[in-house]
Amino acid sequence: MDDGKFVPHSKSQVPVVGIIFRGGYWLDGVMSTLIAVDGFDATENISKMIINSPHYRQIRVIMLNGITLGGFNVVDIKALNAQTGLPVVAVTSKKPNLEEVHAALKNLPCSEERWVAVMNAGELFSVTTRDGRRNIYVETAGISKPVAEQVLRLTSTRSRIPEPLRVAHLVASGISLNTTLVCNL
Amino acid sequence: MDDGKFVPHSKSQVPVVGIIFRGGYWLDGVMSTLIAVDGFDATENISKMIINSPHYRQIRVIMLNGITLGGFNVVDIKALNAQTGLPVVAVTSKKPNLEEVHAALKNLPCSEERWVAVMNAGELFSVTTRDGRRNIYVETAGISKPVAEQVLRLTSTRSRIPEPLRVAHLVASGISLNTTLVCNL
Repeated sequence: MDDGKFVPHSKSQVPVVGIIFRGGYWLDGVMSTLIAVDGFDATENISKMIINSPHYRQIRVIMLNGITLGGFNVVDIKALNAQTGLPVVAVTSKKPNLEEVHAALKNLPCSEERWVAVMNAGELFSVTTRDGRRNIYVETAGISKPVAEQVLRLTSTRSRIPEPLRVAHLVASGISLNTTLVCNL
Repeated sequence: MDDGKFVPHSKSQVPVVGIIFRGGYWLDGVMSTLIAVDGFDATENISKMIINSPHYRQIRVIMLNGITLGGFNVVDIKALNAQTGLPVVAVTSKKPNLEEVHAALKNLPCSEERWVAVMNAGELFSVTTRDGRRNIYVETAGISKPVAEQVLRLTSTRSRIPEPLRVAHLVASGISLNTTLVCNL
């Protein structure tokens, strides 16, 4: 799951693209939804998109490119896990600085509500997905640390980033280039 | 390359998604453009999208999901080959009935111009990409039949359809579901 390009602090929406991957190799499906920039609908909209997908029953784990999508629309991974019944693994390639995030949130309405969602992501830990490469940083809900590590290593077939997230990023970026043009439809 | 969903005979545009694939396994990039439903801009817009892509110099062959995108916006694969300097392979999973195509074109303006583009696709031949599966149907420009057959077999890693085209179809369908919503952006 990854978000597309957007104008920060605008009253607009950003597409979120979900890629269904079989292991670290085969793309089995693509789905998309919209969330509000700096809004509060990421958890609910992503949850609905997954539950309404024809692939829902085959999905074994949800992977997110970080917990903040579309600016500071924070995904509450505990709630996403509860709503979908699926384990959630959020991955970032750089170590997030939680103090900076907390400070940035104070510039937005309902900053405490957002901070609660950030805290719900729980312990941040690092994982080496491929030998000799830099670690990735991980938060989880509904899955044990050793199993999450195993899933991340198995799916990082092309780079240190799990393949579903690498592809979600490429698709979200590739289609977002035309969002203004798509408005002509 | 594949087109997304659209309303037939509407005065609208349909997204065309291009997937950059490394062999039959790795997705390396995603790009997109828009073409007019039943229009005449498919060849030019796809050519521009490819030439302007940062991947252009790495692309070795262009694959198309058929030569008619967005209704009867026909891709002239000879012209696409000439404009991009790259070989073009158009693939369909069912054998196209050229007589039916010719008859259908007569309901559209400039039907002869469209028919010339269809004829420019040259000889239609069938290829067995995976043993024991149904054939696919192929038209080419700027590439010999044996080399095209080799490329098609090498890239059909997951099904009888070459993997770049299978993925382009999934992405184009997955993002098109929200084209009306995306108009809010």
